[in-house]
Amino acid sequence: MSKPSRQLRLGAFLMQTGHHIAGWRHPDAQADASRNFRHYVELARLAEAAKFDAIFFADSSGVRSTHLGSLARTARSEFFEPLTLLSALAAVTERIGLIATVSTSFHEPFNVARKFASLDQISGGRAGWNLVTSSSTSEAHNFNLDELPDHASRYQRAAEFHDVVLGLWDSWDDDAFPRDKASGIYLDTEKLHVLEHRGDFFKVRGPLNVSRSPQGRPVVVQAGASESGRELAARTAEVIFVAHQTFDEAKAFYADIKGRLPRYGREADDVKIMPGIFPVVGSTQAEAEEKFEQLQALVDPVVGVALLSSVIGGVDLSAYDVDGPIPDLPETNGPKSRQHLLVDLARRDKLTIRQLYLRIAGARGHQQVVGTPQSIADQLQQWFEEGGADGFNIMAPYFPGGLTDFVDLVLPELRRRGLFRTEYEGRTLRDHFGLKRPARGSYP
Amino acid sequence: MSKPSRQLRLGAFLMQTGHHIAGWRHPDAQADASRNFRHYVELARLAEAAKFDAIFFADSSGVRSTHLGSLARTARSEFFEPLTLLSALAAVTERIGLIATVSTSFHEPFNVARKFASLDQISGGRAGWNLVTSSSTSEAHNFNLDELPDHASRYQRAAEFHDVVLGLWDSWDDDAFPRDKASGIYLDTEKLHVLEHRGDFFKVRGPLNVSRSPQGRPVVVQAGASESGRELAARTAEVIFVAHQTFDEAKAFYADIKGRLPRYGREADDVKIMPGIFPVVGSTQAEAEEKFEQLQALVDPVVGVALLSSVIGGVDLSAYDVDGPIPDLPETNGPKSRQHLLVDLARRDKLTIRQLYLRIAGARGHQQVVGTPQSIADQLQQWFEEGGADGFNIMAPYFPGGLTDFVDLVLPELRRRGLFRTEYEGRTLRDHFGLKRPARGSYP
Ligand SMILES: Cc1cc2nc3c(=O)[nH]c(=O)nc-3n(C[C@H](O)[C@H](O)[C@H](O)COP(=O)(O)O)c2cc1C
Ligand SMILES: Cc1cc2nc3c(=O)[nH]c(=O)nc-3n(C[C@H](O)[C@H](O)[C@H](O)COP(=O)(O)O)c2cc1C
Repeated sequence: MSKPSRQLRLGAFLMQTGHHIAGWRHPDAQADASRNFRHYVELARLAEAAKFDAIFFADSSGVRSTHLGSLARTARSEFFEPLTLLSALAAVTERIGLIATVSTSFHEPFNVARKFASLDQISGGRAGWNLVTSSSTSEAHNFNLDELPDHASRYQRAAEFHDVVLGLWDSWDDDAFPRDKASGIYLDTEKLHVLEHRGDFFKVRGPLNVSRSPQGRPVVVQAGASESGRELAARTAEVIFVAHQTFDEAKAFYADIKGRLPRYGREADDVKIMPGIFPVVGSTQAEAEEKFEQLQALVDPVVGVALLSSVIGGVDLSAYDVDGPIPDLPETNGPKSRQHLLVDLARRDKLTIRQLYLRIAGARGHQQVVGTPQSIADQLQQWFEEGGADGFNIMAPYFPGGLTDFVDLVLPELRRRGLFRTEYEGRTLRDHFGLKRPARGSYP
Repeated sequence: MSKPSRQLRLGAFLMQTGHHIAGWRHPDAQADASRNFRHYVELARLAEAAKFDAIFFADSSGVRSTHLGSLARTARSEFFEPLTLLSALAAVTERIGLIATVSTSFHEPFNVARKFASLDQISGGRAGWNLVTSSSTSEAHNFNLDELPDHASRYQRAAEFHDVVLGLWDSWDDDAFPRDKASGIYLDTEKLHVLEHRGDFFKVRGPLNVSRSPQGRPVVVQAGASESGRELAARTAEVIFVAHQTFDEAKAFYADIKGRLPRYGREADDVKIMPGIFPVVGSTQAEAEEKFEQLQALVDPVVGVALLSSVIGGVDLSAYDVDGPIPDLPETNGPKSRQHLLVDLARRDKLTIRQLYLRIAGARGHQQVVGTPQSIADQLQQWFEEGGADGFNIMAPYFPGGLTDFVDLVLPELRRRGLFRTEYEGRTLRDHFGLKRPARGSYP
């Protein structure tokens, strides 16, 4: 059997107790995941045994101070710092890629370049950096700021930050360190490249004090969806994580990004687009729906109402009957289109407050698929083959069960269809993703 | 046999290829240590099997741009970033403490608090932070600065930085997270403490997004020797690393620090003082000296002269005959006392340039002991019992051999004398050091 040339990329998006907001309450969920390192070892090994391209951790540097009642009922305010966690997981895995989020708004490029270069060395070439700009004030408050800088300036800083990091990763030629005991020459100073960066946000001299990494450079991932986010990604991202609700959205985004690449001298294959998928798998459709209902029933109304209140732009719905209709809402300063979308949906489908928050509680904006291995594989295959995705970021509702279900039930189906590997072909994250090892000094 | 109550504390100060400047050229040295994670796994396990209290990594965020000829011949410009490395080592060890250096001058307290809290969780209570203020301009140049801030303001920032980090580590009561699936209560908001810090250098709201760590707080280590450094250490350090050349120096420093503690309501036992020791061990004195000569012979004159030139305050000695006397030197802006000390020594002992740089090439200011297991144990015991030290930071000349020698030859002698443990008594770094677990909200 000849292997189809194009293969699905799969990331395991690991998140504490799970992606469903009530996932931590599932009887089989590991409620103390946030401080249980052994739990993550288990998940990383599970994902590696299943030949996922990578595990991925999101990040946030703040705990929100509003809706304390909801904060008390969700598992989102304590978790491992992603780079320490990934480094530890590097030591107990061999092949799987390791992607962590670090914000350009609250760090220094020298430190970020160094940590990912170091992780790439430790892991033998498996590191990836998800570059985000952050969007919450509660994070800004932990970094000497009263407000988050505005969107445009966050992206300006992010673009320069990226360029500094790449420049630092290229401080040394691949063969800069002969380490020759006989002659006493440890390094070749001709192969050292001082950056001397002076820009609007940063002055960084370099060089980095880490030799060039096994991958040449760690893989750059991005997850911004705004116009500035897309444009930065088109120039610099090698992998894009994104949230879509529908196939049409996915196709439009995919075409948009790939269409921007030629302007930067890049080809379609240089960037892998990976929407998030929130899968609930059953051996029959009824079983899948039952599993999903079991999770939905665990959503505390306090949590659901707070979530909905914040999603529709900060309007407090807690004074209204949770089983009554959505009240008329005042205009807000928040994202208006999202408010309108949800209110229209509620009016059209005659949803109560409870029914509406349950619509959004699970997948947090990502595509929710509740079905059999066949129906889920059908959808992934369609997105993959018809211009919606190069792969997917799998967001299990709870851990480890939600991930095990995907591995045990959906992966065999994808493999039967020749869409996903049965063994790793290479050793680095670039190998898994089919991304070229960049030459030193070549910048996007 | 009744165990003596006071036991030596021992740290294994790991440093790339070794502490001797030419250690990397030793036939048995691991020349590629700086990018060889397996090498560090071996060292960490060796130190753990030997029941060291901790392994320790120094840090620097810059590569110097002067004396390129010497840079080319030393192994100091590429190495793992300490926190990623220690996190990875946490996953492959069980008991040994994990201490990393992070500078307060080039980081944000929220990030530092979080990473060490996370490492403490990952390792089950084995993290320690060596708080330094940094002293090199080549580091400042990587963080938007033209010059290093002056000494006083570095220490002001360091003191406030420390207080913010401790405040963040105390964001949650030990029992703040019931994670009760039945009631749906994940955390108890009454047990959440928002920091709301507003100082001269930092505005940090908190709370930290990591629950209170197994040790209560990671152990705070310091290594500054100036007046400001000592005073900060007296208030805040739990362990002090220090470099001494003589027993008299060690005693004076020890008495000075312990004498400062009562002013901060602290007791002598609350701070462990650990000078560095650079041991070269032989089964006879002659064998030890031969081992040392083997290392000394590997020091390239380019490296030795550059080292000496910088130590005596930036005077370039490369134009002089390496086997001739020290020339008359102009007064410098550098540390004058050190220049005078060395020049006096050279004049008194009639040393050539080569002989003088060899005097300082090995231990970099720390106590150099070249001897038998007995004579080395004698000295450690004297310092320990006569008011010079609570323990030692062992700085092997090269790795792994230099550390293996200490473990195989000196440790049995220390154990015979009842000075060092044969088994770990507890599980956390605090347990090893005999440091109390701090109550939440109690600050130095
Ligand atoms: C799968 C996925 C993961 C994300 N992870 C993070 C994250 O960990 N931290 C974060 O601050 N933002 C995260 N984001 C959001 C963004 O990447 C981005 O910083 C934010 O949306 C603002 O960019 P935009 O305005 O261009 O969308 C994520 C988005 C997606 C789709
Ligand atoms: C054993 C030991 C280890 C040290 N490690 C570091 C280090 O890793 N990074 C650093 O910048 N300084 C290090 N130092 C130096 C200092 O801790 C301190 O930042 C510097 O000497 C300035 O402080 P001072 O003026 O109070 O001495 C170390 C010192 C000693 C004795």
